[in-house]
Amino acid sequence: MKRAEIGAAVLFASKDRKSYVRTLQANGALGTHLGTIAFNDVIGLAYGSAVRTHLDQLFYLLQPSLDDLLQHARHTTTIIQPKDLGYIALKLGVASGSRVIEAGTGSGGLTTCLALLVGDSGQVISYDRKADSIEVARRNLDRASVTGRVQFKTRDVIEGFDETDADALFLDVPNPWDFLAVARAALIGGGHFGAIVPTMNQVIDLVSALYQGDWFKVEVEELLLRSYKVLPARVRPDERMVGHTGYLIFARAVMRSLSTEADESDVLADEPEI
Amino acid sequence: MKRAEIGAAVLFASKDRKSYVRTLQANGALGTHLGTIAFNDVIGLAYGSAVRTHLDQLFYLLQPSLDDLLQHARHTTTIIQPKDLGYIALKLGVASGSRVIEAGTGSGGLTTCLALLVGDSGQVISYDRKADSIEVARRNLDRASVTGRVQFKTRDVIEGFDETDADALFLDVPNPWDFLAVARAALIGGGHFGAIVPTMNQVIDLVSALYQGDWFKVEVEELLLRSYKVLPARVRPDERMVGHTGYLIFARAVMRSLSTEADESDVLADEPEI
Amino acid sequence: MKRAEIGAAVLFASKDRKSYVRTLQANGALGTHLGTIAFNDVIGLAYGSAVRTHLDQLFYLLQPSLDDLLQHARHTTTIIQPKDLGYIALKLGVASGSRVIEAGTGSGGLTTCLALLVGDSGQVISYDRKADSIEVARRNLDRASVTGRVQFKTRDVIEGFDETDADALFLDVPNPWDFLAVARAALIGGGHFGAIVPTMNQVIDLVSALYQGDWFKVEVEELLLRSYKVLPARVRPDERMVGHTGYLIFARAVMRSLSTEADESDVLADEPEI
Amino acid sequence: MKRAEIGAAVLFASKDRKSYVRTLQANGALGTHLGTIAFNDVIGLAYGSAVRTHLDQLFYLLQPSLDDLLQHARHTTTIIQPKDLGYIALKLGVASGSRVIEAGTGSGGLTTCLALLVGDSGQVISYDRKADSIEVARRNLDRASVTGRVQFKTRDVIEGFDETDADALFLDVPNPWDFLAVARAALIGGGHFGAIVPTMNQVIDLVSALYQGDWFKVEVEELLLRSYKVLPARVRPDERMVGHTGYLIFARAVMRSLSTEADESDVLADEPEI
Repeated sequence: MKRAEIGAAVLFASKDRKSYVRTLQANGALGTHLGTIAFNDVIGLAYGSAVRTHLDQLFYLLQPSLDDLLQHARHTTTIIQPKDLGYIALKLGVASGSRVIEAGTGSGGLTTCLALLVGDSGQVISYDRKADSIEVARRNLDRASVTGRVQFKTRDVIEGFDETDADALFLDVPNPWDFLAVARAALIGGGHFGAIVPTMNQVIDLVSALYQGDWFKVEVEELLLRSYKVLPARVRPDERMVGHTGYLIFARAVMRSLSTEADESDVLADEPEI
Repeated sequence: MKRAEIGAAVLFASKDRKSYVRTLQANGALGTHLGTIAFNDVIGLAYGSAVRTHLDQLFYLLQPSLDDLLQHARHTTTIIQPKDLGYIALKLGVASGSRVIEAGTGSGGLTTCLALLVGDSGQVISYDRKADSIEVARRNLDRASVTGRVQFKTRDVIEGFDETDADALFLDVPNPWDFLAVARAALIGGGHFGAIVPTMNQVIDLVSALYQGDWFKVEVEELLLRSYKVLPARVRPDERMVGHTGYLIFARAVMRSLSTEADESDVLADEPEI
Repeated sequence: MKRAEIGAAVLFASKDRKSYVRTLQANGALGTHLGTIAFNDVIGLAYGSAVRTHLDQLFYLLQPSLDDLLQHARHTTTIIQPKDLGYIALKLGVASGSRVIEAGTGSGGLTTCLALLVGDSGQVISYDRKADSIEVARRNLDRASVTGRVQFKTRDVIEGFDETDADALFLDVPNPWDFLAVARAALIGGGHFGAIVPTMNQVIDLVSALYQGDWFKVEVEELLLRSYKVLPARVRPDERMVGHTGYLIFARAVMRSLSTEADESDVLADEPEI
Repeated sequence: MKRAEIGAAVLFASKDRKSYVRTLQANGALGTHLGTIAFNDVIGLAYGSAVRTHLDQLFYLLQPSLDDLLQHARHTTTIIQPKDLGYIALKLGVASGSRVIEAGTGSGGLTTCLALLVGDSGQVISYDRKADSIEVARRNLDRASVTGRVQFKTRDVIEGFDETDADALFLDVPNPWDFLAVARAALIGGGHFGAIVPTMNQVIDLVSALYQGDWFKVEVEELLLRSYKVLPARVRPDERMVGHTGYLIFARAVMRSLSTEADESDVLADEPEI
């Protein structure tokens, strides 16, 4: 049985679908729209327990998942959605032990996801020009208790990455095409490249640039998430949904330039028929 | 630099988007629609290298990702799609070190994904009534080199799971509502429950059952993946897409029955307005 | 050249995508967030003309389309979306000259669409229990100048429809399965039936009922509309979209009961394989 | 009661979802996978009637809707899907009495839809460079009995349209931006412009061109249709769906050049925030 101890980030979820993430501290309290919960009454309880506010309203005590943490994360930038995070990690081949680079850090949503997945034997290196972003990301990582797996570098990646054998590299920047050469240099042969961009114009620019470099298996994809209302007698999709966050682009790092015979026909033939 | 050694599962990807996954063995060969590749010419090459068939056709040598492995996996059952796998893992809170149960094993797609993510410090326990399914899954896991992290149990889960403190549990069975009590017993307090079902009728039955048990934060979701054609001058969505694989249902294990005051009004209020 | 005359419903569209529908009257005026437009300056102008507010802000004078009218319609009930309206009309086989029944009238969105399409040689008969709804619908129809083609009946359709040879019939009510017998009686042989319902539970109930009556070619469909932001340098889908309005159900009226040999195997075989 | 007479196009729909469109002729017959139907047994039957093949297999006799006709239409070109047709008509403001231009004719799917909607008081003018296309379209129109409402012109529209006061104009050509000036000249003030293009590159080119001409209210939209399997005990979305046919672009014809003060800031401000 896992218990909520002092210092843990916990989730209080109410029956009306509102929830709160807080770090438990002695004598602390959570003020909610349904009354106050004293942390001293919570510390030591098993996760999954029902707790009551001073107004006798029901909350459940849960350990926040990445999904919960992201929904409650501070963010100064548009955050990559959970629907995209899991798929990005899978397409990048990220697993326990992976060594992954990302730029920019943003609010640290993807950083947190990657850090959870690579484990203690893996590593995440996260670049961002802005010290502010890294500060926000660091606080979000703390809640997931995985800060130790992430190395932050406050620097513009136009100068190049320090690493040369990363398993995967992800760009969340407005102009990823400008960083393809340094990204390729940072990746191990066969390594996974990914990027997210919001506009069609960027998709076209990035795809065009990928076709001219040492990349193969270029893919553009997009995920749409539908959430449902779940009252058993009236199950139905939500009226509103997120229509778009970004287009996802993936490619594998190859040694095209070393292949002396490779020419444009090889590249364009990558897409056989229209 | 990572090299393709004997015994490794490798991916040969051609410029016309056909690809092959093979285990490298001395003196072996791959016969493709574009000619033959002798494995002796490949063993020891760095991943990302260009290789040529005896007809001088270009292939790239890559380490297969989970996505590649699943696309080339043998499967006797409908396989959970990559688009769903990453999201399921994220919603179940699976990370390096997690202890996760699934039933049934099916062809081992989710098993492989989970095994890659939990790392050596984690564990996957996979139940299936059919020894055949487990045999297929085991072979698919071998290719990902993560068989050691998975414990298979050839058994109907109606009798209950052996475990009592799993972090997460996923049901890919036609009648998940019949297993909610044993699933709840196998989960730690606050643990993550997930299921996939193809029909509306099953969604309604499962949601109804979840509302009557020790579960909270019931969610129904669905992911749609759009893939794009990527010839730079003509970027466009594919004409055909996968319209449906399954509805995803998630919930958290809580101690509702222990909450003496809990009554139906608490439960139904979970969904405030329609 | 078509000109905006007194009595006409016109659309004023501003450069920041706000728009207003008004009926032109002598000495009238439109107060906008960008200043006032005097109707006397507008009356007699050609459609498509630029007009300026007293603050010199640009608006264009347009004849409102059905789409515009619906977006500006008064509505007391959830209105069927434009994305669904056109498709419903097409699936119901509605064309110039058609005779179509609907129940309920709601706010008259579908009524207006049908009235525009059936022309002077066609007819729309619209039933609603509530006189209020019909009053709102009538005002919305007036703006489209097609009130004369619609016959309203303030009545619960449980008692049956007056008509017996309608080309098409559409139900926008919470319990359409209760009206299938009277709907079948109102339709000509081979006539088109349609309905919209928001929940999965209703879809299942309606489909089940259709399979037991004189219906064939039962179809369930759903349309998702993505709108794009169109600044040329940054074309991208809107972040927010309408995730759901309703499931659309269609069927054709046939003489199953007259087909003495028809049995359940015929019916269920309608869906060959799962 | 409407009966199937000699010369009518009729639909034979079988219980396993196969269907056939044929023109009834004395002594004719339909050979199906389930046996033969003699037309003499069918002529004079009411629509909706059950008919049996010589192998005693059940078919229903229906009047084909536009949707049915399009599914059975001969087509030499990619045809606009029913999901898009209804919406295009609605967005173009097409109704009974409208005067609409299209280029190119293609296989006549949109032509047929428009002809059904404009009625005898309306008119459709359809341009195509290829006499072949027009021939195919004419045959498809014949089945819908609306050929009289359509005027075909075998000509490249680069030379301009003959008309000057069309209510709406639709371009289904690879390079619609090249025809915007002649399209604007053919439209009445405030008239509706529409186009369909399959690629992102075309969307960007067309939107850019529209922003530089006498157009307003530029919209880009896309419709996704999900179809469901309807066996009552197992209602679920189809596994396969059409992922893409084309992006829909709409705009209204205005007199921007006449508005002396109009400048680029007016135009770009059309899209306020990103």
